[in-house]
Amino acid sequence: MSVLPTDSLSTPRFVGLPSFMRLPMATELQGLDAAIVGLPSDSGAPFRTGARFAPNALRAMSVMLRPINPYRGHINIFEVLRVADAGDATCVPGYEIESLAALERALDAVVEAGAVPFGIGGDHSVSLAGLRAVAKRHGPLGLVHFDSHTDTWDSYFDGKRYSAGTMFRRAIEEGIVDPARSIQVGMRGSLFQPADVSQSVDLGLEVITCDEMFALGLPETARRIAARSAGHPAFLSFDLDFVDPAYAPGVETPECGGPTARETLSLLRSLQGLNLVGCDVVELNPSYDGPGQITALLGATVMAELLAILAEARVRERSR
Amino acid sequence: MSVLPTDSLSTPRFVGLPSFMRLPMATELQGLDAAIVGLPSDSGAPFRTGARFAPNALRAMSVMLRPINPYRGHINIFEVLRVADAGDATCVPGYEIESLAALERALDAVVEAGAVPFGIGGDHSVSLAGLRAVAKRHGPLGLVHFDSHTDTWDSYFDGKRYSAGTMFRRAIEEGIVDPARSIQVGMRGSLFQPADVSQSVDLGLEVITCDEMFALGLPETARRIAARSAGHPAFLSFDLDFVDPAYAPGVETPECGGPTARETLSLLRSLQGLNLVGCDVVELNPSYDGPGQITALLGATVMAELLAILAEARVRERSR
Amino acid sequence: MSVLPTDSLSTPRFVGLPSFMRLPMATELQGLDAAIVGLPSDSGAPFRTGARFAPNALRAMSVMLRPINPYRGHINIFEVLRVADAGDATCVPGYEIESLAALERALDAVVEAGAVPFGIGGDHSVSLAGLRAVAKRHGPLGLVHFDSHTDTWDSYFDGKRYSAGTMFRRAIEEGIVDPARSIQVGMRGSLFQPADVSQSVDLGLEVITCDEMFALGLPETARRIAARSAGHPAFLSFDLDFVDPAYAPGVETPECGGPTARETLSLLRSLQGLNLVGCDVVELNPSYDGPGQITALLGATVMAELLAILAEARVRERSR
Amino acid sequence: MSVLPTDSLSTPRFVGLPSFMRLPMATELQGLDAAIVGLPSDSGAPFRTGARFAPNALRAMSVMLRPINPYRGHINIFEVLRVADAGDATCVPGYEIESLAALERALDAVVEAGAVPFGIGGDHSVSLAGLRAVAKRHGPLGLVHFDSHTDTWDSYFDGKRYSAGTMFRRAIEEGIVDPARSIQVGMRGSLFQPADVSQSVDLGLEVITCDEMFALGLPETARRIAARSAGHPAFLSFDLDFVDPAYAPGVETPECGGPTARETLSLLRSLQGLNLVGCDVVELNPSYDGPGQITALLGATVMAELLAILAEARVRERSR
Amino acid sequence: MSVLPTDSLSTPRFVGLPSFMRLPMATELQGLDAAIVGLPSDSGAPFRTGARFAPNALRAMSVMLRPINPYRGHINIFEVLRVADAGDATCVPGYEIESLAALERALDAVVEAGAVPFGIGGDHSVSLAGLRAVAKRHGPLGLVHFDSHTDTWDSYFDGKRYSAGTMFRRAIEEGIVDPARSIQVGMRGSLFQPADVSQSVDLGLEVITCDEMFALGLPETARRIAARSAGHPAFLSFDLDFVDPAYAPGVETPECGGPTARETLSLLRSLQGLNLVGCDVVELNPSYDGPGQITALLGATVMAELLAILAEARVRERSR
Amino acid sequence: MSVLPTDSLSTPRFVGLPSFMRLPMATELQGLDAAIVGLPSDSGAPFRTGARFAPNALRAMSVMLRPINPYRGHINIFEVLRVADAGDATCVPGYEIESLAALERALDAVVEAGAVPFGIGGDHSVSLAGLRAVAKRHGPLGLVHFDSHTDTWDSYFDGKRYSAGTMFRRAIEEGIVDPARSIQVGMRGSLFQPADVSQSVDLGLEVITCDEMFALGLPETARRIAARSAGHPAFLSFDLDFVDPAYAPGVETPECGGPTARETLSLLRSLQGLNLVGCDVVELNPSYDGPGQITALLGATVMAELLAILAEARVRERSR
Repeated sequence: MSVLPTDSLSTPRFVGLPSFMRLPMATELQGLDAAIVGLPSDSGAPFRTGARFAPNALRAMSVMLRPINPYRGHINIFEVLRVADAGDATCVPGYEIESLAALERALDAVVEAGAVPFGIGGDHSVSLAGLRAVAKRHGPLGLVHFDSHTDTWDSYFDGKRYSAGTMFRRAIEEGIVDPARSIQVGMRGSLFQPADVSQSVDLGLEVITCDEMFALGLPETARRIAARSAGHPAFLSFDLDFVDPAYAPGVETPECGGPTARETLSLLRSLQGLNLVGCDVVELNPSYDGPGQITALLGATVMAELLAILAEARVRERSR
Repeated sequence: MSVLPTDSLSTPRFVGLPSFMRLPMATELQGLDAAIVGLPSDSGAPFRTGARFAPNALRAMSVMLRPINPYRGHINIFEVLRVADAGDATCVPGYEIESLAALERALDAVVEAGAVPFGIGGDHSVSLAGLRAVAKRHGPLGLVHFDSHTDTWDSYFDGKRYSAGTMFRRAIEEGIVDPARSIQVGMRGSLFQPADVSQSVDLGLEVITCDEMFALGLPETARRIAARSAGHPAFLSFDLDFVDPAYAPGVETPECGGPTARETLSLLRSLQGLNLVGCDVVELNPSYDGPGQITALLGATVMAELLAILAEARVRERSR
Repeated sequence: MSVLPTDSLSTPRFVGLPSFMRLPMATELQGLDAAIVGLPSDSGAPFRTGARFAPNALRAMSVMLRPINPYRGHINIFEVLRVADAGDATCVPGYEIESLAALERALDAVVEAGAVPFGIGGDHSVSLAGLRAVAKRHGPLGLVHFDSHTDTWDSYFDGKRYSAGTMFRRAIEEGIVDPARSIQVGMRGSLFQPADVSQSVDLGLEVITCDEMFALGLPETARRIAARSAGHPAFLSFDLDFVDPAYAPGVETPECGGPTARETLSLLRSLQGLNLVGCDVVELNPSYDGPGQITALLGATVMAELLAILAEARVRERSR
Repeated sequence: MSVLPTDSLSTPRFVGLPSFMRLPMATELQGLDAAIVGLPSDSGAPFRTGARFAPNALRAMSVMLRPINPYRGHINIFEVLRVADAGDATCVPGYEIESLAALERALDAVVEAGAVPFGIGGDHSVSLAGLRAVAKRHGPLGLVHFDSHTDTWDSYFDGKRYSAGTMFRRAIEEGIVDPARSIQVGMRGSLFQPADVSQSVDLGLEVITCDEMFALGLPETARRIAARSAGHPAFLSFDLDFVDPAYAPGVETPECGGPTARETLSLLRSLQGLNLVGCDVVELNPSYDGPGQITALLGATVMAELLAILAEARVRERSR
Repeated sequence: MSVLPTDSLSTPRFVGLPSFMRLPMATELQGLDAAIVGLPSDSGAPFRTGARFAPNALRAMSVMLRPINPYRGHINIFEVLRVADAGDATCVPGYEIESLAALERALDAVVEAGAVPFGIGGDHSVSLAGLRAVAKRHGPLGLVHFDSHTDTWDSYFDGKRYSAGTMFRRAIEEGIVDPARSIQVGMRGSLFQPADVSQSVDLGLEVITCDEMFALGLPETARRIAARSAGHPAFLSFDLDFVDPAYAPGVETPECGGPTARETLSLLRSLQGLNLVGCDVVELNPSYDGPGQITALLGATVMAELLAILAEARVRERSR
Repeated sequence: MSVLPTDSLSTPRFVGLPSFMRLPMATELQGLDAAIVGLPSDSGAPFRTGARFAPNALRAMSVMLRPINPYRGHINIFEVLRVADAGDATCVPGYEIESLAALERALDAVVEAGAVPFGIGGDHSVSLAGLRAVAKRHGPLGLVHFDSHTDTWDSYFDGKRYSAGTMFRRAIEEGIVDPARSIQVGMRGSLFQPADVSQSVDLGLEVITCDEMFALGLPETARRIAARSAGHPAFLSFDLDFVDPAYAPGVETPECGGPTARETLSLLRSLQGLNLVGCDVVELNPSYDGPGQITALLGATVMAELLAILAEARVRERSR
């Protein structure tokens, strides 16, 4: 039996505390297909901080979304999937390592209950908590990573190994990401070192830079993403700075010259055949988003598209 | 048995959807001493609109508050009172009369359950819904009204009788406010008509203008407020434009030259002997509040002081 | 004889109260070809409110525009058309039905004087007032509608039939829009119900979704728009959420993934053969527009392009 | 016969282009008692620029004011005085000297028509244009100057003698201000040179610093101001940085530690016996004012108090 | 020989990178009487984060200040003291303990060179780095602490002992603050636990709450502060949330009902006899400060007053 | 020997006063290949003023950039070029002609030292100072001008010949720009006069309008730009309003319908064979840029691309 969100044709969207897409708050994780989980930690942020306020900012704009996705056969996400908003994981601000552990514990509960976690960051280091929790159940994961940066550096300030710029190297080292089934898309902009991008290739990842993505075209890019993970359990991580700052000003590390929101959504809507076992949308920073909060809206829209990928997959499974 | 808010020394304040002061959301109204109710209607607003977003904005800043009030004997509000956040009433945007009816229905449920409603507006016309709901149980009410305007005009545009400038005249006409037990405090600023203030006196209300309040002194003003309602069931309505716009920029109708936040809180903290049966804090408009959201914080602080008045009264009752 | 705007090479644009494009304020409607009319009502807004402040916000940015349109033969709009800013219609905030009536009365005067009204909303429900006024003179109208939503729902909260989401269904029911000569362009995003878009087709309207528009290409889209109304008196209604939120953050209901401003203007500039008898640009909400006020500027630019369509048509008529 | 502003109980304040207090725009200066004149020049600003947008920003908030002043016998300003909004003087941005000349020409016309000019700056150097225009009719003027700075420096960058920090020294040199009848009130904060304040005394002005004002008390300060000009034709210049930045953040040169808005208005409301022949309210900078625009509202409120001083004086004259 | 700041009468304040008060950047610490040091760490912040951007925000507004302090005998601070801006200490974002160590190293260099450090936070935990560095030279310090909170809790989330709410307990435990010579002033607002304030007294500190401060009067409060440290080496720590949020909206933990800026500056200006060996101004958060940046200006003004205390003391020493 | 910027993998980007890309501040101009020079004058601005704050705003966002440009062979700009931040030129606010002279003097010093000046405006009139300084060394220059306006008007208000709309006509008249080697790219939007664009052609300039640029395609546009200057000493002037306002809201004169940031950067990255002897990036206005400061970031990114053009050219020269 499905649990439906509040109907925005009956009750105005501004009524009530804003859960993700006006879903019910989870009172019980068992039986859910997917759970929205806020991951409000920003201790991994090397520059702009404040992503701790992102989960609620994204939720506040998600009330504008409607349950039916016309890009995947007019599927009603919440008739297919039982989804609830599981609230936020806790964290320990100023203590990155302890924060990741706290997030991981909350995500463990979601994964153990059999639900796919859809995390709302937080800075990008929260993905490490997600990958750890999900890999416990599914083994080494294919990573599908949208970003303008590779986040495969080795360490940051004072040699610290855990931050929003290093977590995917850590995940490969920890054996929870299988680079051979993983892909990074959208890299662009100036570099610290000549190897900022090639270091990912050296780690075994496939990389499609932003320029390469446009040279290939979006449909071919989508095809390559699917081919790379090839049905293997995949964790999709979407850093909002993948998109141009005009569409996503409210992020930690904006990088000029990215795709538009239409291009981005078109790419996500054409992804086929992914076996999503975990997702996150990260790096929203509402303090830099302006009164229109368009980054938060885009983040919520991306999350809804990720839910639709899972919903469509489940429809296919059931129709077999 | 009391229900305590989330402890902000254990879980960071930014974790979780922000209910009022991190209280539990009400699953059941029965047994509550007080219920926080969002009244997100702004169809009565003659100028700046957007107070529909105020309940959640006030809640978001209320997470900064702590449960113990040192101004009333270090009382822990939530050990004395069972309080929950009952979420929001619904409304019908663009339809003022229907909105008031919808708000009233939600407040009826709170009052019928025996809880004192603490409403978060919404434009000031929501007070009419509150007064109607509470008067059904308690009969004609003493009104304790803090504001820079009397809101006792007869009608606004196109002769409409229901708006944020007319509801207290309506309440007196409806017999749900007893003017002889009622008082308005803080009136100031330029007038439409010479009788803008005296019309309240003509209706039987006591009026203490802002200048008179400072001439009397705050302790004497507090004494007069208490004397006016004299233990009779009282409804306290706090319009945030009572305070100077420097302290409350995020309101619909700011009026320069009001008291400071310290003076305002000092006045509220010295109120003694009120028999509160209903309250609201109204006219917050987060779009005009600036990134610091100081009006929302002040509104939340005022609400917590009103809860403390009720808590202290209950302690006294129990100790008799 | 034409009436020219203040010359911004002689008098700085910040000098004087900002009428639309620094046009003279109308002291007399007779003899005007077109009149700019503010329609500052937002009682139809189901979500973000504040479009009541839009007409003056759009005017404030319109001072940046210049009279000559290089995309239509370097036409000087105001040498061809006698245009004035007729100020604002009044409304009754919080009373949607009465507001529409008040707006209609003001627009009646414009239409009766023989001028084409160019309305500045206000929420989208103000289009119903415009359609009613114009249809009195011209009969059932072709509707040319740019938006990300169809706005052909039947009712909103509490069964209310008049709102910013229902007015085009009402207009068809009232017989003032001829669906067979009408077209909606730009629909996108998630849906409440599977029929959110197809309900317009069921009403007899042609619909070109955002994806279809890009599949067709902008020139073919422009051709279809013109073909649909085929010279019949047409009312063009432009909802600023047609454009992507990056270009138009200051709207009530932003929808990610829309066209850019360049694509939008390119489409409008290629429209040929329209017989405009009424226009509006709606749903601007300056509170959400950021300090750059780019949505207001885009709205003003769109309005100037609509004036150029009319001017070019008049030049052609005269040269026949 | 008086000309009344639009009634905000009949037509919502957001309807129509916002003239000062919704007054009619002047079509003719003859016969006016007072004229509101925007002076949108900021070429004299040594630090934050943008006061060119102040006149319209102040007007936009002035619509919140009502015609009756309860602090001076419930006088209806516009029944006593014929006032109109005369629009803006022009200026030459980037050319300070030419700008002052252009402003002066516009003010000459007001003064020659017999109206008292109430100027809305602009940076403070616009006062020199006002003083010049008014002194042509009334001879050397008493200056009543509220500010946190003396603005009697000799020159600024590159030895330039005309700027927002030097105009009162220039006015004394030009013989249009009589220092013996002039007073400066409110000086505070850190100094460039030890003589920053005493240089005014050396010029013959009376100075009451902010600390001295509080030591004297506001009533005595008001008495001294009146005594200084003693009925002589006086020009009152109000720099909004007189007030603490909490109340007036939107200024060019904020100075922490000033009076509150209530103290400021109380001082203005207790001024008696001034013979106002010219006024200005200057240094508003809307870009720094925040979404609540409280500085603009305070500026408008101050202007209305200055009009009330004139109105009360006229009532007294007529009753003699 | 003194080193003077750039003269703002000669070079506009907006010219050049903004060092504190336009002082020269230190190329050498030896020979300085005082050094401004940015402490841009916010890993200790339990709620709003972003104080890492505060040092440069405070510097940007400090260019408005002038070198002469008229409240202490028209002293020219920079003719008395050799002061330079020593830039920022580094830190390790997301790693609180390592950050404090990095800050301490930078401050050690200042103290070892014989200069008094004037730190610009950063969250309040940076004071621990300052106390540690200064105590190495001067032994246990008297703490003069202005704040609305005591910051003497034992631990925060997950039992962590280092944060912006615990550092003064740590300092006492480390023996670097002598509670018998220390005082906390300004505590107010709601409490977590009944002992939130009394825990400081239990530690041996003197506490003057906000209410007590106003009951005593500001001069007597100043006297008590001086008496408490009695010439002993004192570290003065000023948390900007001491001031009411209307004056300081841009802080991490605003607390309604505090003193005004005028009262605050008056208190600081009346402090006599302090033997300052270290200072900081902390908790500024520019993201919440609004476009006027009044909190940053107030922070800079407070810092300049602290410099004046040191300057005046040096003048007295030299004149002995 | 090169001088490298602070490494943002070692020291967080928010540490230290933000020079351009964290470069060392110039203590000596001799020996530099290029110098960043702030030109903080906005006295030439006919509309929105405040570009005086742009150099530091652009610097503050430039800390996000990294030294290696992957679009030109992974060149490390600062290993190839010796670059320093030379701080700001001074100016005389409110005195346009004197300001240009002051800027020119500062730029003379840079050019005389043999460094290529990279100016950060300021309003666009600052380009005249740059052209004058550079032409003294290199003779009449090829101008490569990106903008939405031609800026070849003859005069503005009051016949003034120096402003942000006239400087390129002046430069041609002064013989410092050789129109036959010069090109303007990106013109769009409404016109004052039919000749607003063709007047540039009449002056001998090549003009590629925005529509023509898209018709030609970006690679062909880049080829034409290079062909026009053909290795002759070129001055590249980039007005940020070249880009669509969604990507650059923080400018003086936004013009809807421009290229995206990706298109813009792609164009700049494909420029080959330019002989840059001077550059500027102008018209940033941080007051209108929103909290994300995306215009400042884009301006900094553009500047880094211009540095890369010079670096690549030097590599080629050296490898010959």
